[in-house]
Amino acid sequence: MSEIYDDQTFFKAYGKLPRSLDGLKVAGEWPALKRLIPDLKGKKVLDLGCGYGWHCQYFAENGAEVIGLDASEKMIAQARQKNNHQNITYVVGSMENLDFPSEQFDFPSEQFDLVFSSLTIHYLADFPKLVQDVRRILRPSGQFLFSVEHPIYTSRKEQDFIYDANGQALFFPVDNYFKTGARQTHFLGSPVEKFHRTVEDFIEPLLENGFSLRHLVEPVPTSEVIQQFHWENELRRPMMLIISAEKKIMTPKNHDEN
Amino acid sequence: MSEIYDDQTFFKAYGKLPRSLDGLKVAGEWPALKRLIPDLKGKKVLDLGCGYGWHCQYFAENGAEVIGLDASEKMIAQARQKNNHQNITYVVGSMENLDFPSEQFDFPSEQFDLVFSSLTIHYLADFPKLVQDVRRILRPSGQFLFSVEHPIYTSRKEQDFIYDANGQALFFPVDNYFKTGARQTHFLGSPVEKFHRTVEDFIEPLLENGFSLRHLVEPVPTSEVIQQFHWENELRRPMMLIISAEKKIMTPKNHDEN
Repeated sequence: MSEIYDDQTFFKAYGKLPRSLDGLKVAGEWPALKRLIPDLKGKKVLDLGCGYGWHCQYFAENGAEVIGLDASEKMIAQARQKNNHQNITYVVGSMENLDFPSEQFDFPSEQFDLVFSSLTIHYLADFPKLVQDVRRILRPSGQFLFSVEHPIYTSRKEQDFIYDANGQALFFPVDNYFKTGARQTHFLGSPVEKFHRTVEDFIEPLLENGFSLRHLVEPVPTSEVIQQFHWENELRRPMMLIISAEKKIMTPKNHDEN
Repeated sequence: MSEIYDDQTFFKAYGKLPRSLDGLKVAGEWPALKRLIPDLKGKKVLDLGCGYGWHCQYFAENGAEVIGLDASEKMIAQARQKNNHQNITYVVGSMENLDFPSEQFDFPSEQFDLVFSSLTIHYLADFPKLVQDVRRILRPSGQFLFSVEHPIYTSRKEQDFIYDANGQALFFPVDNYFKTGARQTHFLGSPVEKFHRTVEDFIEPLLENGFSLRHLVEPVPTSEVIQQFHWENELRRPMMLIISAEKKIMTPKNHDEN
């Protein structure tokens, strides 16, 4: 997983993004994501790759006890300043191994009602392992809700439209869709390694590991946000995918399913 | 829904397709589709848009009692000749209204174990209505299994790669992804109206209408078929989507779900 978020140049550029400065209200996918968040009152929530902690703050303000996990010390330092609700515990640690995310911390089984992740899983090489880890730490009927860059958006490392001579976007190109794995991309001027997977690659590991799908949403920014940032091209290709899945209570029937 | 399949010119061209001549063994998606077909012994199966009846024949040969429904009289006439297993009943009728698909036929509730459709639903304007109809005629725990052209493949009416001056495919273009609805496309030299929908548009109506998702598969032809027909470009973009869903047995808990 990329530790780019601890790079000084990248970190500065990231800090100037609208969503870094102003949080959820300028994140195009937030209205769609918010609708899928279950009741938070008295619930235990884990935010994987919590960044500046905007989502942690939302969960805490709505009654949850929250753990925000991020591999970047710089991010966690910012989160502790910007989004410091008393019911949030920030932890520097990796989501690649939720058995031992950090030396100071571990996650006993079946303790969370919601495991959440915003735009981090496309940095992760092994999604099926994450699904198994999340399943272990979720309570029965607990939910796994996450957003990722859409497989259409990640298929080519350029992650951009094709433009004509006047700079008008012609269409969004897809290629090597079934050649999944690492992509050496650029984000905010810095090289970043992301992992491309298909839609199937997101869904089947959930269904195979004791989850039932609750929602699959391809979010589009609200018309206000589209206007504010001139994001009309957002309607031309999917950029994000939001998935909500519930940990099934195991019964003999569930175990027999193919 | 397009009645193109009763057009003489189109029908002749369709009859020369590998899959029309040689059936399932040359259909690139068949190995993936076949794996998702449940046990057929003694089961009742409905094939929506059965065409030449290749799938009906497979279902019947594996022990099912089968109804093959197709809006095209020409298709049904061919099916009766080519795939005439005694346990298949072919019916000319529309899948747009499964309450009254034809004057001679109706479908009582909860009679099928499997409702199947191969590459027909992208001709259909109203998918949520189909889902509700299928739910009604399926037995509890019955399955709805279908293949469609992938939303990536249907977003632009051209449905083709962008080529360079030497005729080499550069990439597959996506556009107007969120502008769902009719597309005036061409298939085998004839104009055909198809309906573009997003991945979300296929999944959410199932989850909202009492189905649980069993599988979401983006099939790739076997390496043998890729070699035989020089289909290397099939690995560059998804062309088909296969979805398998199960009719949930309603409980008070299911009814409460959002």
